[in-house]
Amino acid sequence: MKLYDYHGAPNPRRVRVFLAEKGIDVETVQINIFESENLSPEFQAINPRRVIPSLELDDGTVIDESVAICRYFEAVKPDPVLFGETAKEQGLIESWVRRIEQDGFAQAANVIRNENPVFENRAVAGWTDCPQIPELIERGRKGLSAFYAMLDKHLAKQPYIVADSFSVADITAMCAFDFGEFVGVAVPTELSDLASWRERMASRESSKA
Amino acid sequence: MKLYDYHGAPNPRRVRVFLAEKGIDVETVQINIFESENLSPEFQAINPRRVIPSLELDDGTVIDESVAICRYFEAVKPDPVLFGETAKEQGLIESWVRRIEQDGFAQAANVIRNENPVFENRAVAGWTDCPQIPELIERGRKGLSAFYAMLDKHLAKQPYIVADSFSVADITAMCAFDFGEFVGVAVPTELSDLASWRERMASRESSKA
Repeated sequence: MKLYDYHGAPNPRRVRVFLAEKGIDVETVQINIFESENLSPEFQAINPRRVIPSLELDDGTVIDESVAICRYFEAVKPDPVLFGETAKEQGLIESWVRRIEQDGFAQAANVIRNENPVFENRAVAGWTDCPQIPELIERGRKGLSAFYAMLDKHLAKQPYIVADSFSVADITAMCAFDFGEFVGVAVPTELSDLASWRERMASRESSKA
Repeated sequence: MKLYDYHGAPNPRRVRVFLAEKGIDVETVQINIFESENLSPEFQAINPRRVIPSLELDDGTVIDESVAICRYFEAVKPDPVLFGETAKEQGLIESWVRRIEQDGFAQAANVIRNENPVFENRAVAGWTDCPQIPELIERGRKGLSAFYAMLDKHLAKQPYIVADSFSVADITAMCAFDFGEFVGVAVPTELSDLASWRERMASRESSKA
């Protein structure tokens, strides 16, 4: 089994943190998306969709999408449970993961993919011939600011994103904040509940993955 | 329990088809997003995120996001399994659902949300004060055409989106194609494997939901 990974990108990090929380070791291969290595014929032969992270199983099956890779490992090694135990927890965690992806991750991606010259004509992950749209930079920045404020308010009421236990929703949020800051939208220091939660997350061993 | 639903929108349909496949009956309330009913103070009091579909549980908990609602019901009533049995199936189904959402659903949304005057200044679901970006209409149209061709090629090799059984990935794709056609990007008739799959999907009782 091999995980096609890249240490400079936010999505593969979600998988590495998840694996660290589960205590699972997987061989990784670095594919530098800033140098378009994911678009090379060699990588395209492994995954025609050309996205990172991608997990290659021993039978040659390739699973891409961070959350899909995490779900694979949740099924292989359920302990500790990171996608929820009860139906309600499972529904809420899935909901929050998607909300964080749309309101946080996708907005940071709107900024970097439409602003950075590296992504000229490849403004959507895995696509070629996709022009950048400068107006999306502003949409992304506004979205990130609203996202930060929303989660600060949410975390004033509870220690983790969903109820009182750590889950894949916290991993997703942690990576979304780092991604937002990476694209130049700082988290305002007055968002103190968010700041405390981020410190708690950073103190987990898995955050170094 | 109540499902806030809208018969004119593609995402709530995913949940209705899923419930029909499971044989689950839930009380529904129609919220017309074309008339901005989801932005009303009444609905905002139920779900501040203002998105449809939303599921309200008997304890008042609200779960939004189509797939999150489906996951809740998969846990409540596992039979028939629609999110996969083995780890590999679960990973592949999650991966395909997300791919169909990004390459199909999101592209159709790019078209309608940035083109239709109904969504003026609300180009992202649940957001207010979000201007339309006309260039996204073209990105959406191009994306949908590529999506149709990609799934035709994929369905030439197998009867369902993932391996040989019906899953939530088929439901997602069925709704994505209908959404793509709704926004004016017709599925080319020469994509014959896709056409056969669509006929098989349409012949299921659940497709009427």
